[in-house]
Order: sequence, then structure tokens, then C-alpha cells
Amino acid sequence: MNDPVAPDQSIITLTTDFGSDSPYVAEMKGAIYSINPQVTLVDGTHAVVPQDVLQGSFLWQQISRPFPTGTIHVAVVDPGVGTDRRLLLVKTSNHYWIAPDNGLFSQIVARHTVHQVIELNKPDYWANQVSRTFHGRDIMAPVAAHLSRGVPLEELGTPSDGPMVNDFPTAKAGNNCLSGQVIHIDSFGNLITNIHRTDWEAQQIPDHCQATCGKHLVSGLQRTYSEAIPQSLIMLFGSSGLLELSMVNGNASKQLAIPVKTAVKLTWSS
Amino acid sequence: MNDPVAPDQSIITLTTDFGSDSPYVAEMKGAIYSINPQVTLVDGTHAVVPQDVLQGSFLWQQISRPFPTGTIHVAVVDPGVGTDRRLLLVKTSNHYWIAPDNGLFSQIVARHTVHQVIELNKPDYWANQVSRTFHGRDIMAPVAAHLSRGVPLEELGTPSDGPMVNDFPTAKAGNNCLSGQVIHIDSFGNLITNIHRTDWEAQQIPDHCQATCGKHLVSGLQRTYSEAIPQSLIMLFGSSGLLELSMVNGNASKQLAIPVKTAVKLTWSS
Amino acid sequence: MNDPVAPDQSIITLTTDFGSDSPYVAEMKGAIYSINPQVTLVDGTHAVVPQDVLQGSFLWQQISRPFPTGTIHVAVVDPGVGTDRRLLLVKTSNHYWIAPDNGLFSQIVARHTVHQVIELNKPDYWANQVSRTFHGRDIMAPVAAHLSRGVPLEELGTPSDGPMVNDFPTAKAGNNCLSGQVIHIDSFGNLITNIHRTDWEAQQIPDHCQATCGKHLVSGLQRTYSEAIPQSLIMLFGSSGLLELSMVNGNASKQLAIPVKTAVKLTWSS
Repeated sequence: MNDPVAPDQSIITLTTDFGSDSPYVAEMKGAIYSINPQVTLVDGTHAVVPQDVLQGSFLWQQISRPFPTGTIHVAVVDPGVGTDRRLLLVKTSNHYWIAPDNGLFSQIVARHTVHQVIELNKPDYWANQVSRTFHGRDIMAPVAAHLSRGVPLEELGTPSDGPMVNDFPTAKAGNNCLSGQVIHIDSFGNLITNIHRTDWEAQQIPDHCQATCGKHLVSGLQRTYSEAIPQSLIMLFGSSGLLELSMVNGNASKQLAIPVKTAVKLTWSS
Repeated sequence: MNDPVAPDQSIITLTTDFGSDSPYVAEMKGAIYSINPQVTLVDGTHAVVPQDVLQGSFLWQQISRPFPTGTIHVAVVDPGVGTDRRLLLVKTSNHYWIAPDNGLFSQIVARHTVHQVIELNKPDYWANQVSRTFHGRDIMAPVAAHLSRGVPLEELGTPSDGPMVNDFPTAKAGNNCLSGQVIHIDSFGNLITNIHRTDWEAQQIPDHCQATCGKHLVSGLQRTYSEAIPQSLIMLFGSSGLLELSMVNGNASKQLAIPVKTAVKLTWSS
Repeated sequence: MNDPVAPDQSIITLTTDFGSDSPYVAEMKGAIYSINPQVTLVDGTHAVVPQDVLQGSFLWQQISRPFPTGTIHVAVVDPGVGTDRRLLLVKTSNHYWIAPDNGLFSQIVARHTVHQVIELNKPDYWANQVSRTFHGRDIMAPVAAHLSRGVPLEELGTPSDGPMVNDFPTAKAGNNCLSGQVIHIDSFGNLITNIHRTDWEAQQIPDHCQATCGKHLVSGLQRTYSEAIPQSLIMLFGSSGLLELSMVNGNASKQLAIPVKTAVKLTWSS
């Protein structure tokens, strides 16, 4: 394994749909520390909507970006646990990724070059007893821990074809318009869309364009959250490079009752 | 102290009823790091229902299982703080346990052999100023930190009789029936009962038995969450070895309005 | 820098209004570990009410107290991100503090002697690309990480005048009375006021005084949560030295519908 990271620097992140502060998270951590007590564990988020693979994939990719080379990212959103869905370990140029092969890898594959795909099928690196309902604790956690200790990828499983990729709703360009949707709502109530800054630039959208979202209209792109008067709805590019609608000093999602999947349409005059 | 764990490997877990993300948790961590900045701290859960010693005991035991030998587990569910309830340090074959002696140890004692019981009564190992309302921060955290640095148990207090054990509701066997109850609801809405796989095996219950829970009937034991059609209620053994009722792709507790302590009865024909 | 803490002992705490379990927290951690993978990261709390600088300042100070000398505390409650509000690094006798200069430092300044104030204006120590909406990740996290590796304060920015201090509502003494208010509600529903034990002692308030809070009357000071009958409302000094009203075995805030900012008045006969 040409892994540039020394074992004593290794970091494992955990992203799940277990809910904040779930005892299941602690069980995964115990399983990891039992194999590598020196590893650094970081909670990604455990607030993925239960069984929502699409949102999980989005958040998993978002969280991973600032982490250093060699980080091992584990995601457990696993409604098919105990069935024949596969568990994969994917190596991209800088990071390792472990998850069920149910679409969770979609956003990773979309933004990274995949170097290696390993199907986890070597029980020597799993818990002694593997439950049918918690492979996060019994397979993914132990494999991540062994990897963090320097076990080569090839020992953890066999080479496999690339991960399954779900249709992720992408923004669609039309005649002087771009149609997307809300894909995530953060804890401030900001409505985060699937319209990326690169989509915007590819369409040469002018900053004075208009957005419609439900019954609501927003005119012009802002640069920060506080450039408009309180309680006005604005649009800007957030820290992930995605267009978001935000209520100044407020909570757009709650105050306007706009849920995930609401359509967002940009229009402009040429 | 015949502790097989080197201080630099030591891990302390924290389980409380302080609520997710409570500043009180951070205060306990600060108190521990002030004494041992090298220790690894792990959140068990802080979502124990406030003052619910019974649930706390159940979750404390569940969380502890995957952790390595030598781990120090601290639990603070302490409605009697500031009264004359005792604080204990218990050593079992593999782990250390620190908590108020109010029944929190019940599930630990039920599943581990107790080697040593120490009453914490040596203020030399406590905070300089001990509040009347937060012994988690002022006594239990400092004692755990000193223990993680290798201070012998005998220095931290005096030998004592075994911890208080609360009546934990156990499953009762009848004539071709077994009666238990829901003792915990996880973040997926799964209804976790006090019927353990060992109870099931002791009664030689057939897999085609029936369960009643409130007005709801479940037929037959499944092995995983996804073996039945969506929105059907199933029963299976979860990752803790306890029987649970689960709504496929749903949330049994919310959709069926079933709370903790609801009776669950298994019946079968011989 | 006359910092008594060796880099390998350094601790960074994070306090934000991002919400429990937010992916934004993980992004800050990734940014820190990318610069200093050896640092110890501790969550203060992420449950500050969004954009509530006053509550943030109170909780930031509360959390910091038990941490060891040399700890670096980062707070991100930053409604003005991307505007011309400054970012500061403050050194007190024992700790380092990094936050926007929007009043978050108020409670720190009130309780510590400020030794040094540095305005963060050296982009060499920031992320390569700085977003307009997330300076917690792109400026404050990297600066904290460089500080934890021993970079001198003077390299991270230029000396500056002291941080902005907001009017914090303080208790007002009258004729045999003291008027304060509820400033925080903890996860047990305890109503924590801005009346500090030192206010009480300065006024020589007798323990048999009376408190009114909304329509509710409390007679006499208790020492612990369990000295009165269940479901009675009591007052006592909590672990932060602040007077709080608490429902024995209950949740005062929910059961009495008392929100933050409710007036609390102490009266006594001389």
C-alpha cells in the first residue's frame, strides 16, 4: 500500500444516520479503539435523515473536504444491512472511504478519481461475532481500524468494480434559465440547492438574475448573509460552493415552510 | 493495582443525562484534561432521559461492550447529587466503572463479575472546590482522570460493599408465553425490549411465534430489517441481543405511538 | 510567545451556534487537523441559539473554566461573517480566545485580565481560499491550529485595542430587593439567572428570602436539587455560581412555561 500517512497520524471520520448522541456511535468507537487505541476519531455528522442515502452522500462529501491526506471516512446509512448488498473500501488520491455500496459513494465518485475499489470480504478483519443488524460496528469499524494501523488494502478484501452511483438530481439548463432543487437544510434553516458555482459560471448567469422557490422570489446574488435587511430572503453561494437561499437573521425553512426537494428556478434576461 | 493497561492507552467514556451537546459535558472534559491531557475521551451518550437511572443503566452497559480492556466508564445520572448517596468505583475483570450508587450499576453487576468496590471518599483526588450540584465535574471526572494516570484504586477511596441493584424489569415465562416490555426506543424508532436472546433460547421459543404489543400483532422472527415489505412491523434480535420491534423503512415508535414500558407478549403453540 | 504549554499538550475547544452534530463542526475539525493532527479537539457546545451573541458569551465563559492552562478556545457565533467586523485573538493569563469581535468576548473580559489582543489579519495563516460565509472554517480554525503548533501571537496578526463588550444584563440591587433575569435554560429545564453568588453575598441576602419569577413564588434558598418534595420549585446556586430556579424531579421551564429573559426578583425583610 503506497499510503503516505504514518499510522500515528491516522484519522477516522464517522458519518451515520444514527441520530445525534446515539449509543450506536459509541459502540462503533469502542470497536475501533479496541483495535487501534491511538487513532483520532472525528464525528462527521450523525444527523443524516434515517435511511436517506442521497442526503448522506451529499453530507459525507461535504464534511470530508478539509481533512488531511490519508483520512479514512466511514459512512453508515445502511437500510439493507444483513442483505446481500456489498460493503466497499474505495481509495481516491487522498482519502479512504468505507460504506455500503448503496449509492452513498455517488458524490465521492462525482468529485474524486477512484484509484482502487475493494469489496470487504475477509472476516479475519471483522468482529469475532458479526450481528445481522449492525455492520457499522461489526465490519466497517474494525476494517477502518485495521486500515489505520497500516494493513494493506489488498488484505482487507478483493478488487471489485466501481461503486454504485445513484441518480443525483442535477441542475438543468434551459433557455436563459437554470432549474434545480433544495437538497439540504442546515441548522440555520438555510435552503441549500444543487446549483453549484460551476453551473452558474458555465451558464454565465448574471448576478442580477432572479430565483423562484415555491411562491417566493429573490432578486440578485449577495455575497454574505448580512448584506440585506433583516427578514429578507437572499441568495448567495455558501461555503460548499452551492447556491443557497437564506433569511437574513432568520430561518428560511421554518418561516417560509419550504422543505427539501422544493424546486428552485433561476431566470435572467440575456 | 494489577491494571494491565498502560496509562498512555487509557480511555474514559462519559454517559450522562445532560442532553446532547450540553455545556456540562464540556466542563467534565475540561476537568479531566486538566489532570490528564493525554487521555482519550469518548462520549457514550448524553441522551439518557433526565434522572432515568433504569434507562441509564441499560445504555451504559450497552455502550461499554466493544471498548478495550482497561477502559474507564463514567456515568452521571444523579438526581440525588449533594445528598448522602455514595459515589462508587467498581472494578470488573476488564473495565472500571464510576457512578453514583443509585442503581446505575444494576446492569453492570448483572453482566460482569465484580472484583473490587471502592467508595470515593478521598477529597485529595477531587476538585479544589466541590459544588453541591455537579459531582460529575467535581468528583467523578477528577477521580477518573487520576485513575487513568495510574493512581491505585485503594488511594481513591475505601473498600465498600457491592453497589445497589435496582429491580430491572425482566421477562417472565408462562405457559407457552413470555412477557416483557419495551425498555428503550432508539433514534430509528425501534422498540427495544427486555427479552434477551438467551431468554428466547431458554424457553425454546419457535421462530414462528407471535408477539403482541399494544394493539399490534407481529408474526414470526426476522433476521434483518429489510426482509419484509416496507411499513410492516417486524421483530428481530438487534445488535445488543435484545428482541426489538421495528417498522421496515419507518419509525415504529412514532407511527404506532408506542412508548417505553409498553408490554410485549410472546405466545406460541407447542 | 511566553506560552507555558508544550505544543503536544495543546487543546482547542469549539463553541458555536451551528447546532448539535452539524457538518459545519466537522469541517472546522478537518481544517484544524490538516494543520495540527496531534491537537486535542473538544466540543464546548454547538447549541448556542443561532446568532445569540449574548448567550454564546455566557456559555463560552462557563465551559472554559475547568480547562487547563494554555487551552485555545474558539467561538463562532458570527452573524456578520463577510462584513468588516474584526476577528480577534485574545490572551488572558491562562487561556487563548479566538472569536469575531461582536460581543462574544464580553463575559471573558468581565472575568479575566486581558494580556494581549491581536487582530487576525495575516492571510498566510488562513485557508488558501477563504469563503465569504464561513470564517470559522477558513480563518479561525487554521489560526487556532497554527497557534497550537507554537506560532507566536505576533505572527498571526497585529496588536489591537480591546474587544468590544456588550451590555450584559446585570442584577440590580434596590431597597431589600435584587432584580435579575433568566439568562439560560439548561437541558434539565433549570432556569439559570444572572444573579451570581457574589451579588447575593454583597447584598447580605438572607437564605430565607423570597424569589418571584412570573407568577411563581419561591421561599428560601436550598443547597441541592433534592432537598424539597418532588414537583416543587426551588432556588439554589448552581455549579457556575449563578442562582437558578429548579423543579424537583421535573422541568421548570417546560412545566411553568418560563422563557429566557423572564424577570426574577429577590425580596427580603431586613
